[in-house]
Amino acid sequence: MNFHYPNGKKYIPQKKETIRIKKEKKWSFSNRGMTLEEDINETNEYYLAHGIAVIHKKPTPVQIVQVDYPKRSAAVIKEAYFKQASTTDYNGVYKGRYIDFEAKETQNPTSFPLKNFHEHQVKHMELILEQNGICFVLLRFSASEEIFLLDAKHLLHFWKRMKEGGRKSITKEEIIENSHPIPLGYRPRIDYIKKIDYLYNL
Amino acid sequence: MNFHYPNGKKYIPQKKETIRIKKEKKWSFSNRGMTLEEDINETNEYYLAHGIAVIHKKPTPVQIVQVDYPKRSAAVIKEAYFKQASTTDYNGVYKGRYIDFEAKETQNPTSFPLKNFHEHQVKHMELILEQNGICFVLLRFSASEEIFLLDAKHLLHFWKRMKEGGRKSITKEEIIENSHPIPLGYRPRIDYIKKIDYLYNL
Repeated sequence: MNFHYPNGKKYIPQKKETIRIKKEKKWSFSNRGMTLEEDINETNEYYLAHGIAVIHKKPTPVQIVQVDYPKRSAAVIKEAYFKQASTTDYNGVYKGRYIDFEAKETQNPTSFPLKNFHEHQVKHMELILEQNGICFVLLRFSASEEIFLLDAKHLLHFWKRMKEGGRKSITKEEIIENSHPIPLGYRPRIDYIKKIDYLYNL
Repeated sequence: MNFHYPNGKKYIPQKKETIRIKKEKKWSFSNRGMTLEEDINETNEYYLAHGIAVIHKKPTPVQIVQVDYPKRSAAVIKEAYFKQASTTDYNGVYKGRYIDFEAKETQNPTSFPLKNFHEHQVKHMELILEQNGICFVLLRFSASEEIFLLDAKHLLHFWKRMKEGGRKSITKEEIIENSHPIPLGYRPRIDYIKKIDYLYNL
């Protein structure tokens, strides 16, 4: 069984090991070491604090198997497993409209591999578009630090092409042609709502 | 520290104990033993399968502390804690509009205790209304099996009354006056979207 980290990276087990999760990083002024997820979370906090939009990251889905209730202290989950998410990671509301997106990054400088997405996530995006929701992906090329907003309808097109035997990635040229670059800012870091407001005439 | 189950009930620890979580109940044709949550999940599955709306329950938020990666098998979470949710449990899209709600039940036959809600959830509802999202609570009186849809603006009113020293619950009469009953159906079980469609002229 392939296990994927919540960030989509595949974990290849070498030997039994135990990992203690570090405490969440504090927000810093420099972008050094900040992941796409941290940038988006910071952006969403900015939107929330300024009454611009209410967008949250969904919790990582976990199947809980065993819980201990020690005397006079908090319940401890002693056995649980990561479940595959059936939706995208982020959703919320902007001017009454439903907003839904997934964010992914690649170290590949020339194309965006479609293996970053799962079948059920793409299906979810299709259903959102059918319900007239605003659905997109934020794609980040980590080498060049470029971020693009690609409407889900284009992702569905490239996904379909792959399913029909075509290439397993979206070329950088195709992304440039079909998506909208989002310049990295200071506050907010990734102002995707500004782009959405413009693109959808909200 | 007070620990609350995801269903809002307070857990009073008596002694150290270990609980193994039962597998999810299978959907059955009778309503015997079905909780409000199961009824809503079944309703949402119905909406999804019939292309009516895309509404999901958010995963229970968990703070993961320690993960084991056994050789050739799935990662096991060995230590984690329940985190308090910062939003409501359900959200999604219907006809492009953002839908957000919380579902609670009480065994009290004459009033609905406000302790079923948390401060931050009520704050979240306020922010959703400011963004022109559709936000409400589904209240179930388990003794009479009655379900009411109460717009979040009314909940905010009763919450404010409590904060100003008023009663800590909403009387059944106030609920009848300000909300909309949802008859329990067969498929879907709790057709709240039909009510929303009518109430908001969607």
